[in-house]
Amino acid sequence: MITDLSKLAARRHEVAQALAAVLPAGCVLAAPEDTRPYECDGLAAYRQMPLVVALPHDEAQVLAVLAVCRGLGVPIVPRGAGTGLSGGAMPIAEGIVLSTARLNRIVRLDATSRTAVVQPGVRNLAISEAAAPHGLYYAPDPSSQIACTIGGNVAENSGGVHCLKYGLTVHNVLRVRVATIDGDIVELGSEAPDAPGLDLLSVFIGSEGMLGIVTEVTVRLVPKALCARVIMASFGDVVTAGNAVAHVIAAGIIPAGLEMMDRTSVSMVEPFVHAGYDLDAAAILLCEADGTVEEVDDEIARMTAVLREAGAGAIAVSTTEAERLRFWSGRKNAFPAAGRISPDYYCMDGTIPRKHLAQVLTGIAQMEVKYGLRCANVFHAGDGNLHPLILFDANRPDELHRAEAFGAEILALCVAVGGTITGEHGVGVEKIDSMCVQFKPTELAAFFAVKKAFDPPMLLNPGKAIPTLHRCAEFGRLRVTNGALPHANLPRF
Amino acid sequence: MITDLSKLAARRHEVAQALAAVLPAGCVLAAPEDTRPYECDGLAAYRQMPLVVALPHDEAQVLAVLAVCRGLGVPIVPRGAGTGLSGGAMPIAEGIVLSTARLNRIVRLDATSRTAVVQPGVRNLAISEAAAPHGLYYAPDPSSQIACTIGGNVAENSGGVHCLKYGLTVHNVLRVRVATIDGDIVELGSEAPDAPGLDLLSVFIGSEGMLGIVTEVTVRLVPKALCARVIMASFGDVVTAGNAVAHVIAAGIIPAGLEMMDRTSVSMVEPFVHAGYDLDAAAILLCEADGTVEEVDDEIARMTAVLREAGAGAIAVSTTEAERLRFWSGRKNAFPAAGRISPDYYCMDGTIPRKHLAQVLTGIAQMEVKYGLRCANVFHAGDGNLHPLILFDANRPDELHRAEAFGAEILALCVAVGGTITGEHGVGVEKIDSMCVQFKPTELAAFFAVKKAFDPPMLLNPGKAIPTLHRCAEFGRLRVTNGALPHANLPRF
Repeated sequence: MITDLSKLAARRHEVAQALAAVLPAGCVLAAPEDTRPYECDGLAAYRQMPLVVALPHDEAQVLAVLAVCRGLGVPIVPRGAGTGLSGGAMPIAEGIVLSTARLNRIVRLDATSRTAVVQPGVRNLAISEAAAPHGLYYAPDPSSQIACTIGGNVAENSGGVHCLKYGLTVHNVLRVRVATIDGDIVELGSEAPDAPGLDLLSVFIGSEGMLGIVTEVTVRLVPKALCARVIMASFGDVVTAGNAVAHVIAAGIIPAGLEMMDRTSVSMVEPFVHAGYDLDAAAILLCEADGTVEEVDDEIARMTAVLREAGAGAIAVSTTEAERLRFWSGRKNAFPAAGRISPDYYCMDGTIPRKHLAQVLTGIAQMEVKYGLRCANVFHAGDGNLHPLILFDANRPDELHRAEAFGAEILALCVAVGGTITGEHGVGVEKIDSMCVQFKPTELAAFFAVKKAFDPPMLLNPGKAIPTLHRCAEFGRLRVTNGALPHANLPRF
Repeated sequence: MITDLSKLAARRHEVAQALAAVLPAGCVLAAPEDTRPYECDGLAAYRQMPLVVALPHDEAQVLAVLAVCRGLGVPIVPRGAGTGLSGGAMPIAEGIVLSTARLNRIVRLDATSRTAVVQPGVRNLAISEAAAPHGLYYAPDPSSQIACTIGGNVAENSGGVHCLKYGLTVHNVLRVRVATIDGDIVELGSEAPDAPGLDLLSVFIGSEGMLGIVTEVTVRLVPKALCARVIMASFGDVVTAGNAVAHVIAAGIIPAGLEMMDRTSVSMVEPFVHAGYDLDAAAILLCEADGTVEEVDDEIARMTAVLREAGAGAIAVSTTEAERLRFWSGRKNAFPAAGRISPDYYCMDGTIPRKHLAQVLTGIAQMEVKYGLRCANVFHAGDGNLHPLILFDANRPDELHRAEAFGAEILALCVAVGGTITGEHGVGVEKIDSMCVQFKPTELAAFFAVKKAFDPPMLLNPGKAIPTLHRCAEFGRLRVTNGALPHANLPRF
């Protein structure tokens, strides 16, 4: 690490000069007032000013940036729209940020083969907008879809409320074109159903910028459903609601969306958006069906029957598109609503096998008592992807500490029941230490071996997503110092 | 390569002794009469006697075999049931065959979470049989499913006639436990919806035994459909039939199966199985719907309308389960039927983007004239996965040569329209030279880098699936010697 400020300034000058020599004017930012907007992504608590920001316009310029960095040994942090929630695009002091924002062209859209070829800086929603005249859209819909880019979606393997039925990014991307740190262009995947050779496309998707810079993405487009309706079902306790989710899936139904909110979530969101939620319910489920009118009527009827059988109280079904959007508005505004009732909140992203939903919800309720903090549970119930929001006030130092310990214990419980520490937000810098708990040293070594196969000089987004064994060892010592947590070995973080 | 026979015998003795020291009695085969059954897999034209065959009973014994081979530098060819069609399990003279046949236990089956944990030697169909009492089954159904094992399915990323709707192996396996050449056990994937870290599960599935030995597989089980019916539609020409496939998919329908057979296929299979196929049709499509009775009725009606609109002639719909099975019997017996009308046949496995189906079928018809050989087209039309069967008589040397050139030209056409050289049969030894055409040197280098990350001593199934750059260079010279082929650069093989 370069600690001497004058040395850092000299290095900045050197790198900026070298990049300016290979890029058009206006593509290199080095002054603090220009690089400030890049100091963090959506995980704003983690900030770091980068050395330089490079904004290439095309693939050739991306390769030129990589060549300069390779030559000078400069780390590279790739960045899409910066909406990520785990600090994956947080800069490194001695490294550049490579923004793909200017590679923002839809190269072509083929309605017959239902594919679109787009550059990485194209916004997620812009793809669906371009496909709309053909009755098609791009399915994965992260809540940031207005702003986030397909390049970032590829890096994080983004999901959304409809990914239970329509899949994650990895299920909706057919091919990526990648600039490697060695200066090659490789194409991973195929528009044909299956590609020979190793499936490097799947390894690339979700690799958090560690394997290469994506310069082109071929996505699958799907037909817009003719009709969609949503059920809002109330439950008297969260365990019954959790079991109801398992029953819906067990009945062979794959809803277009299956989301759950507990009483705390409902009570914080209802005064804000007036979605018509049942304030007396301990939990509500939102279950969407889409397809033809007949399919939707049939699936709504089957889901209603299953939910009643599973112990639902009040059940309302949207009858108009406006009503459907109103039912969803509460779910979609849950995070902003948390800001209205609590100075701070800490959002988790653990996943669990669906059958353990009720058990984990009970565990979280017990932790609320233990830590003296409220937790709003809002999540993709159908996927088993939890987003508990721990509400606290950072101005009381003890509350921050308790919130961190509470979060760690939730993730520990997720791992203990066979789940994971992150579903769709990525590891980034935020959860890197938890990776030491999730994986064995041999498994982390396998990750690193593959990372090194793509990036021998280890310049692409170093320090993110995969912890070094050294770091895990350090972390192990820290863990001992702080004492063990229940359920598993997750530490404060 | 050990060419001296006495040296090979001495090496055999050395390796067999070393393996016998770590395995129970009866787990090491070295005598030619014992190892003969392992000299080839389903691609019987390629044969090679192995040095030794090892038949471990459990994971600890698999690790012991790997340790012996690592210590002695012996290559390892993993083998499931030996039903593969590309020679992936063909032995190497100086290497052992590691058969997973005895790791054949269903470890557990969880009807609630709809998963089964099985050892690699469990047969594909045995999983569905075990799940049947719960109304569940394992979806991928390669035509060898009575015999083939889940370990082999993982190695080849096997599909089947229903994979259009239900996915390939990679979509139905949640987790694998792998013994690495370094002697570690790693678990790839997760029962939770998404796992953090690099997606090494997807890279492992379809890696043709080059990355490690699978010792346990967690599969997803799906509910058996309540009802299934199949449409048999006749077409006056293959182009119209090919376009009809595109129209069905374009109508937003994902049939449970969408298969096509041309006139040659129908005429060779009908006298054999009496499926009731239309002998006057230039091509027939089989389109299956499954689900609830209402869903099936609705989908059959929609598909029928689309097929009529697309130019179908006679249309028959199965009304009983017996009739449905009869309609399918012709398709399922197409390969054996080919053996009744032609001394030899050469089965291709190219894939193409669906929209090019008609173009490729027209091209194949032209090649029939050019090479003076008949080609029966039987394939997974919905996936764009072609299985052209080139009919020839190997006793006429010129016919073999023409069949090979014909096959190469079909694959060249597949690549030229954006497809691939193999859909579900794997590369193995059969198509390894074609990989030089499918991929650029930088892409092959990326495959090798990942291969080496898993298998630094390069002992696992060497010479299969990924050609060395040296081999491609050699092959490039061969190619020049033999002259260029039309459409692309695929040579005889």
